[in-house]
Amino acid sequence: MKLKYEDSYLYRLRHSAAHLMAQAVTELYPGAKLSIGPPIENGFYYDIDFPSPLKEEELESIEKRMKDLAKLDQRIERTEVSRDEAKALILDATIPGMGDAVAEYKLELLDAIPEGEAISFFEQKRMDRDGVQHRFLDLCRGPHVESTKEIKAFKLTSIAGAYWRGNVKNKMLTRIYGTAFESKEELEAHLAHIEEAKKRDHRILGRELGLFMFSARVGTGLPLWLPKGAQLRMTLADYMNHEQMRRGYQPVVTPHLGSIKLFETSGHIYNYRDKMFPFMEDDEKETFILKPMNCPFHIEIYRSQMRSYRDLPVRYAEMGTVYRYEQSGEVTGILRARGFTQDDAHLFVRPDQLLEEFTSVVDLMQAVLKKLELTNYRARVGTKDPTSDKYIGDDENWTLATEAILKACDDKGLEYEVSPGDAAFYGPKLDMIIKDALGRDWQMGTVQVDYNLPERFELEYIGEDSKPHRPVMIHRAPFGSLERMIGLLTEQFAGAFPFWLAPVQVSILAIADRHNDLASELMVKLRDAHGMRVEIDTRRETLGKKIREAQMQKIPYMLIIGDKDIENNTVGVRCREEGDLGAMSLEEFVSKTKE
Amino acid sequence: MKLKYEDSYLYRLRHSAAHLMAQAVTELYPGAKLSIGPPIENGFYYDIDFPSPLKEEELESIEKRMKDLAKLDQRIERTEVSRDEAKALILDATIPGMGDAVAEYKLELLDAIPEGEAISFFEQKRMDRDGVQHRFLDLCRGPHVESTKEIKAFKLTSIAGAYWRGNVKNKMLTRIYGTAFESKEELEAHLAHIEEAKKRDHRILGRELGLFMFSARVGTGLPLWLPKGAQLRMTLADYMNHEQMRRGYQPVVTPHLGSIKLFETSGHIYNYRDKMFPFMEDDEKETFILKPMNCPFHIEIYRSQMRSYRDLPVRYAEMGTVYRYEQSGEVTGILRARGFTQDDAHLFVRPDQLLEEFTSVVDLMQAVLKKLELTNYRARVGTKDPTSDKYIGDDENWTLATEAILKACDDKGLEYEVSPGDAAFYGPKLDMIIKDALGRDWQMGTVQVDYNLPERFELEYIGEDSKPHRPVMIHRAPFGSLERMIGLLTEQFAGAFPFWLAPVQVSILAIADRHNDLASELMVKLRDAHGMRVEIDTRRETLGKKIREAQMQKIPYMLIIGDKDIENNTVGVRCREEGDLGAMSLEEFVSKTKE
Repeated sequence: MKLKYEDSYLYRLRHSAAHLMAQAVTELYPGAKLSIGPPIENGFYYDIDFPSPLKEEELESIEKRMKDLAKLDQRIERTEVSRDEAKALILDATIPGMGDAVAEYKLELLDAIPEGEAISFFEQKRMDRDGVQHRFLDLCRGPHVESTKEIKAFKLTSIAGAYWRGNVKNKMLTRIYGTAFESKEELEAHLAHIEEAKKRDHRILGRELGLFMFSARVGTGLPLWLPKGAQLRMTLADYMNHEQMRRGYQPVVTPHLGSIKLFETSGHIYNYRDKMFPFMEDDEKETFILKPMNCPFHIEIYRSQMRSYRDLPVRYAEMGTVYRYEQSGEVTGILRARGFTQDDAHLFVRPDQLLEEFTSVVDLMQAVLKKLELTNYRARVGTKDPTSDKYIGDDENWTLATEAILKACDDKGLEYEVSPGDAAFYGPKLDMIIKDALGRDWQMGTVQVDYNLPERFELEYIGEDSKPHRPVMIHRAPFGSLERMIGLLTEQFAGAFPFWLAPVQVSILAIADRHNDLASELMVKLRDAHGMRVEIDTRRETLGKKIREAQMQKIPYMLIIGDKDIENNTVGVRCREEGDLGAMSLEEFVSKTKE
Repeated sequence: MKLKYEDSYLYRLRHSAAHLMAQAVTELYPGAKLSIGPPIENGFYYDIDFPSPLKEEELESIEKRMKDLAKLDQRIERTEVSRDEAKALILDATIPGMGDAVAEYKLELLDAIPEGEAISFFEQKRMDRDGVQHRFLDLCRGPHVESTKEIKAFKLTSIAGAYWRGNVKNKMLTRIYGTAFESKEELEAHLAHIEEAKKRDHRILGRELGLFMFSARVGTGLPLWLPKGAQLRMTLADYMNHEQMRRGYQPVVTPHLGSIKLFETSGHIYNYRDKMFPFMEDDEKETFILKPMNCPFHIEIYRSQMRSYRDLPVRYAEMGTVYRYEQSGEVTGILRARGFTQDDAHLFVRPDQLLEEFTSVVDLMQAVLKKLELTNYRARVGTKDPTSDKYIGDDENWTLATEAILKACDDKGLEYEVSPGDAAFYGPKLDMIIKDALGRDWQMGTVQVDYNLPERFELEYIGEDSKPHRPVMIHRAPFGSLERMIGLLTEQFAGAFPFWLAPVQVSILAIADRHNDLASELMVKLRDAHGMRVEIDTRRETLGKKIREAQMQKIPYMLIIGDKDIENNTVGVRCREEGDLGAMSLEEFVSKTKE
């Protein structure tokens, strides 16, 4: 069994590194007041009240002092003391980092230790060449490693502001972030990983590539899609529509708000209210709610006519934009936004159709992930927790649906893990977990069986027995949402989208003004005859600058047009990955893009 | 100069027809209480309190009695009386339609006549063969025609419920609607026109063809688009996107709500509040507003980066769904809905680019209307009312913009009328007025110049002089909205959309089960190789029934598949307009659809 991080050597090592940093700071910045310095995921930090603002550049000298202090092989020892002894230690100005002038936060921390609980310090002890004893103590529960010499592979990574005790009314302290590993190799791998993740950050690339933006006047978590991002959405939506139509889905379009009556019937106002935007209500009008889900709308369409067993399954698909009031602290670019567009569909099926429909959904999801070159994924099947009674619907139905999901995965060769207790209260589900190029897991598409909404809306179809029966609903979204999928793809491809998906596929660069006409002509030809998305750059800039900018924009192909091309009826082709491919005819280039 | 309807002979004739109907009713339904019976646009009505509910079938006998009474050449004469005399007349049970038992409403009407105003009755007088004098009087201001024999061409058209004095707390009376004309020919033309309009009513066809629906639980005026309607929207949107991309527009996608700050800056909360849905506000969150317009969002995108004179014009296009709180009485199907999708775009241009951009917009509008086969249209240019001071922006700009609009129309050969005072307060505009197959005018697409929003949002671009300048905005929507355009097209084509637009283009009808495989194969081929929208009908119904239903659904082509087609590798083609076209190869059929 794998050790929990909190119980690991690495956790202790990082905690000791935080203390080591505090020791270096007290030596370098007399008057700096220490507060807290815990290990965290991937590293550690220490919040310190510096006498004057710390600059990021100064981290290097702190790091250097830490290295020297580490090498001294200071033993790290725990001492348990009484409350009075602790207070005396904290106020002892002869010890570095202690004394009346800098004791403010430590005294508060001491006060916060409940009566009866052990009070301990961890001390780094050493004797210098002249035999003088040096001490550094920190009020701390531990545990720590045994000696500072174990702290060999570490790095201070950044500084940030942090309110004392997380309260905005308190003073803002300086938080120094760092990380430590057991070996230099692990540290370097981690730093390279961070560097790589930073390069791929969809928020940064989103701005650089002109995909989306936010505006304070529009609101937190409400993305505005710039031309290239809007094109990406369109390309993805067109692809999904096409795949869905082939599989017998029917498109629908529904409003972005509905009367409160709709959400009373669905139950969302009772169990989903905290994620809803404030209701639209005034004294004279009906109360409306911005939709957090598309399902009740699709259900109203299902209900609008009598359905026979021969009409099922009915599959309604919509690129449905929904709005959910995520806490502003949880909003992250387009990965977690307050407005997003689900590639949503609802299938109304007979119980005997569950397996076939589920298999078809799994097939669609596999096709989609293959098309997106996201080949490293697995599925998680959320089933009932047999010990809980929160679930609705009878056992027979649950068994039927769960077996259909598992069999569909088996039939389609989809690897999965079963996660008991991970089902929704209204039915079992399947989530797709994608591992990206950096090894990070992303929970994306989902399929859910629902016995609840058909009940609440009293959905029916007339069976072969001429009697009314209740259909089962399947909610499914292979992308999850356009926003989240574009976020993932941006990081996965570091912005260099595959040719079919790239917002601009070809940039035509005219070397001089006299090549502009041919450039325009080629653009129209590629666009109208070959359906390509083409940009043209006829600015009076150097060719070098034009190439650099197109490369920065990660455009798959550049066509460079000069005198020779007019003469020979060719284009100079430059590929994003392979660089210069030389001159060729337009037809050769077009067939190259189809390889 | 044309006579006003209220002063016309036709208006008097219809008023007299209402009296004639009241006379017939009092004879046929003793105890019926008359209330009011005015002429209206296209006809007249009378609201009557019947002793027992009237059935629509009974209109025929009332009409017959009216015909007889009309032929008697009753003179219609005005008598002015005192209030006491009027009351005595109303209560005189010897006169048909009068007397205590039926006087209720007429007494109330008498009371409502202000002191000092003349009180008059109009009387239809005749003597029967036996010399007995018959009277029919009605409290009325007139005027009327001279004799009932002038009322020759009339028709009772329908009945409806109507509250006395329009107040829901009063009794519901029966309203009988009728119409009258000066000649039988005019009456017949009018009735045929109504019949035709009814057949084309987009609300009826919308249901029959499965285009859209409404749901009380979703809300008044919020359409839910059914699969075929959603497909229509997609086809129109794809076409518009394509035309716009060719003209250098860039797609954007923006949220359906924004912070109140955005609409404070735009000014919409001050001058557009009555059309807005209730605000989303609660104690803890920011206040949000469902967007009634897309412009402020596109402006935020424009503002997100520095713009140079070389970057302009910037053209942002979005199929933007907006929400406006129309009064429930004004909501009419999808023609006037509370949620609709504008084919919106905003052009940010330099003043010197106005003419070129306007010309390009006019060109786009002409191309769109031609594609939609809406060839009978004219433009209306709304200019400043020179006597008013409500307009913002300086005269020079107005002149520049107005001249650009007129010249663009001239250059593109677009017929227009100038309508002074019809400009918006923020700039001149151009509206397209389409005349449909029934001769009705529809105000559709619009182009507006805007000097207001660039000012409010302090928009800028850096000019050739390196100084900041203010761009001009053009708002434009060639369709107006997808909803309104689909409403118009549905009525214009009576649901029989042209091939390229039809939600289902081809229906494949298998004659018997053994033809199902070929039918499916053909469907896949037409869909995947030729991009057609194809349905397949493999139900065990008679071919006759299948054909009838496909015809009712107004599907352009049916392919009928039987034994001979398997043998000869053919399909039996049936065309919506021309009927049976005989057997042909699939290739022949495909090229037929491209004619």
